[in-house]
Amino acid sequence: MLSWVDGQPASQLPLTDRGLAYGDGLFETLRVSGGRIPLLTLHLRRLAAGAQRLAIGLDLAQVEEELRTFAALLGQGVAKLIVTRGDGLRGYASPAESRPRRILQASALPQWPSQHAEQGVRLFACQTRLAEQPLLAGLKHLNRLEQVMARAEWQDPAFAEGLLCDTSGRIIEGVFSNLLLVSDGVLLLPDLQRCGVAGVMRAALLQAADEQGIAWRIDDLSVEDLLRADEVLLCNSLYGVWPVQGYLQRDWPVGPLTRKLQAIAHTLLEG
Amino acid sequence: MLSWVDGQPASQLPLTDRGLAYGDGLFETLRVSGGRIPLLTLHLRRLAAGAQRLAIGLDLAQVEEELRTFAALLGQGVAKLIVTRGDGLRGYASPAESRPRRILQASALPQWPSQHAEQGVRLFACQTRLAEQPLLAGLKHLNRLEQVMARAEWQDPAFAEGLLCDTSGRIIEGVFSNLLLVSDGVLLLPDLQRCGVAGVMRAALLQAADEQGIAWRIDDLSVEDLLRADEVLLCNSLYGVWPVQGYLQRDWPVGPLTRKLQAIAHTLLEG
Repeated sequence: MLSWVDGQPASQLPLTDRGLAYGDGLFETLRVSGGRIPLLTLHLRRLAAGAQRLAIGLDLAQVEEELRTFAALLGQGVAKLIVTRGDGLRGYASPAESRPRRILQASALPQWPSQHAEQGVRLFACQTRLAEQPLLAGLKHLNRLEQVMARAEWQDPAFAEGLLCDTSGRIIEGVFSNLLLVSDGVLLLPDLQRCGVAGVMRAALLQAADEQGIAWRIDDLSVEDLLRADEVLLCNSLYGVWPVQGYLQRDWPVGPLTRKLQAIAHTLLEG
Repeated sequence: MLSWVDGQPASQLPLTDRGLAYGDGLFETLRVSGGRIPLLTLHLRRLAAGAQRLAIGLDLAQVEEELRTFAALLGQGVAKLIVTRGDGLRGYASPAESRPRRILQASALPQWPSQHAEQGVRLFACQTRLAEQPLLAGLKHLNRLEQVMARAEWQDPAFAEGLLCDTSGRIIEGVFSNLLLVSDGVLLLPDLQRCGVAGVMRAALLQAADEQGIAWRIDDLSVEDLLRADEVLLCNSLYGVWPVQGYLQRDWPVGPLTRKLQAIAHTLLEG
């Protein structure tokens, strides 16, 4: 499969990279469709915010150009971009002259069952809780052991995703998706100031909601809020929107606002 | 510098390694002295505990043999062992047949100023707080962005280490050291059940304390407990023990129990 390091074809990276040593970096998982990347601007915006927070001096124009060239070559599939702080000496201190490393890897778009989008998915109740770390909240950084542990909790394919709460019990997100509720016609989104990944599709749906006059609110949300919701949905920038059809003993029909957002996501991804 | 991947000389690893993608692995930083590794048993014990917690199926006998051979070749310095879950497909789920990867890298022992051990060090007061994640607490895993951010808070060489508290304000550890207090002749150690790394030298000092009848207690400790302490010290398995001579406005002389533990650590490391 196509892979680049710093713009050149490569399949390996130096053992001295701080991405390996400390997870000292960021990533983006981008859908590639017809040689182009939907939502590229939002991906780059999140990457820039992450690089600023971690003080990784990234040349964003270079990253953008590289992503466009890579996507044109790939045509269809998924491009995963990893940006690390680059090589390091032993020790946590950043080298005075660190040079960020850009890694691009292509893969095929996962083939999810069509029922996920049509009838919705059931959510597994993960025991793994997300720690509350405001300094890293919202970023798609490389410290992802919580997600690895959460995803290892279930094998049953009846659950397409798992629900993650934080250590205080608030609902936050799926393992690889953002979570949205609909209550009384208002879109409710978990606050991601303490933990969680601020997804690109989530941002795109909120932009669309503003344009279409759909009310939304970001808030601290509990499992009770979830069970009380009229509609529940998941989103990410690869599959778009999946309705949630069940969690624990609660079942939901696929609601009208979910279908509307799903159509919006479909248009964003397929053009 | 000497480096191995899976027992063979190598300086690179595949881009598909989950250590890079998610920090999905563990590490140990081992002092090598006269071709041998002091505290090897304790290092292997912590590694085994981590591998079990992360469900990484590691052949520990193989790791031990490889470490011994590597140390004999290196002679003097530091051996850094990284163990990752191995290669992965895209996505957090572990591949059904993951094969852990072992990475060994040699470096020189850092040359700290001799005053650190003799007169002690000043502690920087880090703003970065450690998130509370009991599932990962104690492990030396590869998700170390908190340490990277904390270490980036100061450049002033007057501070040899920084003090990290958790998000609830308890004192936990240094950025690359464990922290110990002495109050009324009793050794007090921060509880590492919610966050922090359970250091190998910390474990060795507790064993020695038991043997020598030194009373110790693990507890939730506050900054007030620290400021009230009679002696404060740091330890790790590279430098042994450093007295703490100052934090904020508080200064400490180097106390007798600190000197005793420092001598024990010296013997453990130098034989």
